[in-house]
Amino acid sequence: VPCATGFIGRWSVPALVARGFEVHGLGSRKPIPVELKGAVLHNVDLLAAKPVEDLLREVRPTHLLHFAWIADPPAYWTSPLNFSWVSASLKLLREFHLAGGARAVMAGTCAEYDWALGAECDEETSPLATEGPEIALPYVAAKIALQRLLASYGRQEKLSTAWGRIFLQYGPYEDPQRLVSSAICNLLAGKEVLCTHGRQLRNFLHSADTGEAFAALLDGDIEGPVNIGSEERVTVADVVALIAETLGRPHLVRFGARRAPAGEPPILVPIVQRLYQDVGWRPNRNLRQGLIQTIEWWREKWLSSHGQPTLMPSEFGLW
Amino acid sequence: VPCATGFIGRWSVPALVARGFEVHGLGSRKPIPVELKGAVLHNVDLLAAKPVEDLLREVRPTHLLHFAWIADPPAYWTSPLNFSWVSASLKLLREFHLAGGARAVMAGTCAEYDWALGAECDEETSPLATEGPEIALPYVAAKIALQRLLASYGRQEKLSTAWGRIFLQYGPYEDPQRLVSSAICNLLAGKEVLCTHGRQLRNFLHSADTGEAFAALLDGDIEGPVNIGSEERVTVADVVALIAETLGRPHLVRFGARRAPAGEPPILVPIVQRLYQDVGWRPNRNLRQGLIQTIEWWREKWLSSHGQPTLMPSEFGLW
Repeated sequence: VPCATGFIGRWSVPALVARGFEVHGLGSRKPIPVELKGAVLHNVDLLAAKPVEDLLREVRPTHLLHFAWIADPPAYWTSPLNFSWVSASLKLLREFHLAGGARAVMAGTCAEYDWALGAECDEETSPLATEGPEIALPYVAAKIALQRLLASYGRQEKLSTAWGRIFLQYGPYEDPQRLVSSAICNLLAGKEVLCTHGRQLRNFLHSADTGEAFAALLDGDIEGPVNIGSEERVTVADVVALIAETLGRPHLVRFGARRAPAGEPPILVPIVQRLYQDVGWRPNRNLRQGLIQTIEWWREKWLSSHGQPTLMPSEFGLW
Repeated sequence: VPCATGFIGRWSVPALVARGFEVHGLGSRKPIPVELKGAVLHNVDLLAAKPVEDLLREVRPTHLLHFAWIADPPAYWTSPLNFSWVSASLKLLREFHLAGGARAVMAGTCAEYDWALGAECDEETSPLATEGPEIALPYVAAKIALQRLLASYGRQEKLSTAWGRIFLQYGPYEDPQRLVSSAICNLLAGKEVLCTHGRQLRNFLHSADTGEAFAALLDGDIEGPVNIGSEERVTVADVVALIAETLGRPHLVRFGARRAPAGEPPILVPIVQRLYQDVGWRPNRNLRQGLIQTIEWWREKWLSSHGQPTLMPSEFGLW
């Protein structure tokens, strides 16, 4: 079972170990995250010319969980590396299959859906962003293309495949430019948090729950796209207010101080019937529990490092 | 200007030379087709690990015309090589752009359209086969994915791109399993041609016209998908009857002798307004002229080789 060592991948490892998998983790980062305990880690650059062929033939994994992608905000939306990751993912899939693999699960994104419609996102019925004459951003185009290609490959080659569409995330190790981590870091530093109106309706999942959801998806036989999220619906203001109250600094939050980005959807939430009922998995923590744990992680990390993390401007992007 | 040496690519070379391009042809076949006169030919395997990087940096082409793909009927519909060609095409695009390229045109297919609708195919409004929950065959999924990725790459990286959707072809060098070539070869050998009902409405373009259409598309600035075809609408029976009459052997044709393949669309024709008006190109020969020329080519080839080409069963597939 190869899997990544990034923001979500690391959380899937303990969940897979708990399910009885022998876990081999692929990653190009050091040091090894503590959550990878129980896995054999292989240092591999999937974008390199001959990345995993030899390793896959040696390990002969039965299951593949593939998260690796360019993920630096906001560059990942437009980077040409998105196209390289389509190629690298197809190569990984092919080599995995040729090495005897039986089931492959890859990570998609809620950005595949056409946000202009403003409805809850459903795997079966919601149109995707590339359906129509519009040209999608590289990240969106690449993820949609890979999902279609994965499904086609699996159907043709009798390989079981699924695709987890990740919605909004938070948790330890999150990039400090993203919503929850930037709010926490700024408030911990005593700085103001300048928000938009905050009425955007969203769903947030703790990255540990995301990792566990993918482990459950991999450990089953459901095929096709599956939304990864929860039933909770919150506004961006709810999330920031909850963080600020927990830290005792609600006076530092300024709603309406910034204009919302153009094209930001008022509603972006998943229908999770497939995940809850077909995959049979539900989150292990609600937003309040997850935020408290995440704040503790940042506080301890912040305090123990005797300085604040590199603080980004307290601006909320789409996420 | 790299371009392929296959069934269509070879015809684009004289057309590009006539337009004043310095043509560099990439191909992995020998011997060199006679139509490639006027081009510098480079023997390159685009599926190899490091195929074109060095060559592109040496030649520094301004325009790219990319036809290369798996094309052996009927294997190409389902082959896993379709996924490798997505990767190879993305790599070629990237290397071309990094080497200073300005405009890239790639070859798509009428199979991208959702045939179940039975309408004339329009680039702007017709739904594609992957829009919906159905899983497309590898060839279809790969071509649709590559078109979306090419458009996204071009938009983001300020590279001019277009995508020619090829409809039905015929002409010299065509695979003897396809409609026109198999009818000609069987009739030349005095064998029966066993047809379906023959009422399928189609458009056929001579491969030389296809090559010229792509040269015109490359030599302009129209972006996005463009149907490559003509205004002519004929039935399959029209085409076979025309061939049989020209060869003086109409008695060898049996319409209704075979059942039409499941899922074969009754109507598959392009709207060619973009090609005729926006690109400003029209075919140089009609079906009758093109068929007569193609029959002569097969007859001469057949006679000069003192034997018939390897004859396939006289069955008409989808094409």
